[in-house]
Amino acid sequence: MEMNSKGTAPIGVFDSGVGGLTVAREIMRQLPQENIVYFGDTARVPYGSKSKDNIIRFSRQIIRFLETKDVKAIVIACNTASALALDTVKEEFDIPIVGVIVPGARAAVQATKNGKIGVAGTEATIRSETYTKVIRQMKPEASVIGKPCPLFVPLVEEGFAKHKITEEVIDIYLSDMRKTDIDTMILGCTHYPLLRSRIMEYFGERVHIVNPAYETAMDLKAVLAEQNIANESGESATYEFYVSDAAEKFAHFANTILPYDVTAAKQINIEEY
Amino acid sequence: MEMNSKGTAPIGVFDSGVGGLTVAREIMRQLPQENIVYFGDTARVPYGSKSKDNIIRFSRQIIRFLETKDVKAIVIACNTASALALDTVKEEFDIPIVGVIVPGARAAVQATKNGKIGVAGTEATIRSETYTKVIRQMKPEASVIGKPCPLFVPLVEEGFAKHKITEEVIDIYLSDMRKTDIDTMILGCTHYPLLRSRIMEYFGERVHIVNPAYETAMDLKAVLAEQNIANESGESATYEFYVSDAAEKFAHFANTILPYDVTAAKQINIEEY
Repeated sequence: MEMNSKGTAPIGVFDSGVGGLTVAREIMRQLPQENIVYFGDTARVPYGSKSKDNIIRFSRQIIRFLETKDVKAIVIACNTASALALDTVKEEFDIPIVGVIVPGARAAVQATKNGKIGVAGTEATIRSETYTKVIRQMKPEASVIGKPCPLFVPLVEEGFAKHKITEEVIDIYLSDMRKTDIDTMILGCTHYPLLRSRIMEYFGERVHIVNPAYETAMDLKAVLAEQNIANESGESATYEFYVSDAAEKFAHFANTILPYDVTAAKQINIEEY
Repeated sequence: MEMNSKGTAPIGVFDSGVGGLTVAREIMRQLPQENIVYFGDTARVPYGSKSKDNIIRFSRQIIRFLETKDVKAIVIACNTASALALDTVKEEFDIPIVGVIVPGARAAVQATKNGKIGVAGTEATIRSETYTKVIRQMKPEASVIGKPCPLFVPLVEEGFAKHKITEEVIDIYLSDMRKTDIDTMILGCTHYPLLRSRIMEYFGERVHIVNPAYETAMDLKAVLAEQNIANESGESATYEFYVSDAAEKFAHFANTILPYDVTAAKQINIEEY
């Protein structure tokens, strides 16, 4: 078998901030041989309240930055950017790009028995109806109920994930959804897995909670195999972290999420790309 | 008396987003003859969790943009940018620039009887200790207690200002401060006046609540008089609004704050400046 030349090149993973680390963590677990360059756009976080034009522009800048790191593939670990920018950047860049929406939708379609699926996400993700469209392509008779939960991201970012107040905010946003007969719900924002146990408690066993990160890593694995660019060097993987702001705060947060010591994150000026 | 040539030129007012409209509102009230060009950096909001370097860079870009509108003076209607960037940009630009910290500190120093002053603000504003330094310059024996309240901005932005949950968040952040014997508290973020009645209820009559917007408009008035650039044309004032993202959402919010029909806000790409 011919040795692939790109194998040792890293995977580029990006998000608006720290949330995408939940996806990076899943890639580290499932593809422990792959090098990763992570970028968190902490200068412009959050993306969920911003417009499609800006999300596309931000995504282009980040992909151009990641290309300077010679990445062999890119994972958009942000639901908002996947929902609003993936189709556009896939056409513009000559590199495999994986988003989180299609994997999340597929996992939900596989899990649901009654075809009724809930999606919690940012305002931009829900308004785009991308999950609804993708789910219907896979299962036309499915019914999808979306709900924007804009306070979830700041609650996580400000360390309130385990606070009583978060229970109340979950109830404010999701009480209507709990009254429906959905049997599956997608955590449609990469921050939300950090609220997973609370949301599972809230819905009880009746509702299967889908975290798209797991399926996204599986998709990435398939893409690497298909293009013959998986890392087979046998060397241990290295992880690099870049942010557009507040590198120290990011590194601190990263250490609470990753099974890996993030000693340093480097700050770059993303507007230059 | 010689007619000033710059009189009819507008005042540039900027903020990270909608919060600065509380300052613009005060300028409209106190200086009804002045034209205003407002810029809200909605593509990069919030500023409060970001680094000094980026806040300075953002402020420079915005001032360069406002200069293209031929403004005669600039008001930094954002506490975070006033705390971290005012000194730097004042030296770099040849135009009068007024921030909100000095006026807010002065109002608090005038109001306090026991010299004990609380400041609620963003993480960046409180960490900078700018309020403490400025207050001590005015009243060296004053003691200042700062408290970052990072969830206040998203609560306001997401329409929870009057929700019960906001009471609980106020209690989480400010219960320690309420136990002290401060007699004056500064609302050290331009979003916080939108929570003013809640915060006043929480502290009761014992504590005088300072909103720097009022004093900022007074400072601006003094600067215009000093430099002989007040508008004496007698024409009715015009207001223009620019944002870096989501112009419609901004206009909707602006209409809930301003005694003026914001029919349109224009979106520009601030990174080009």
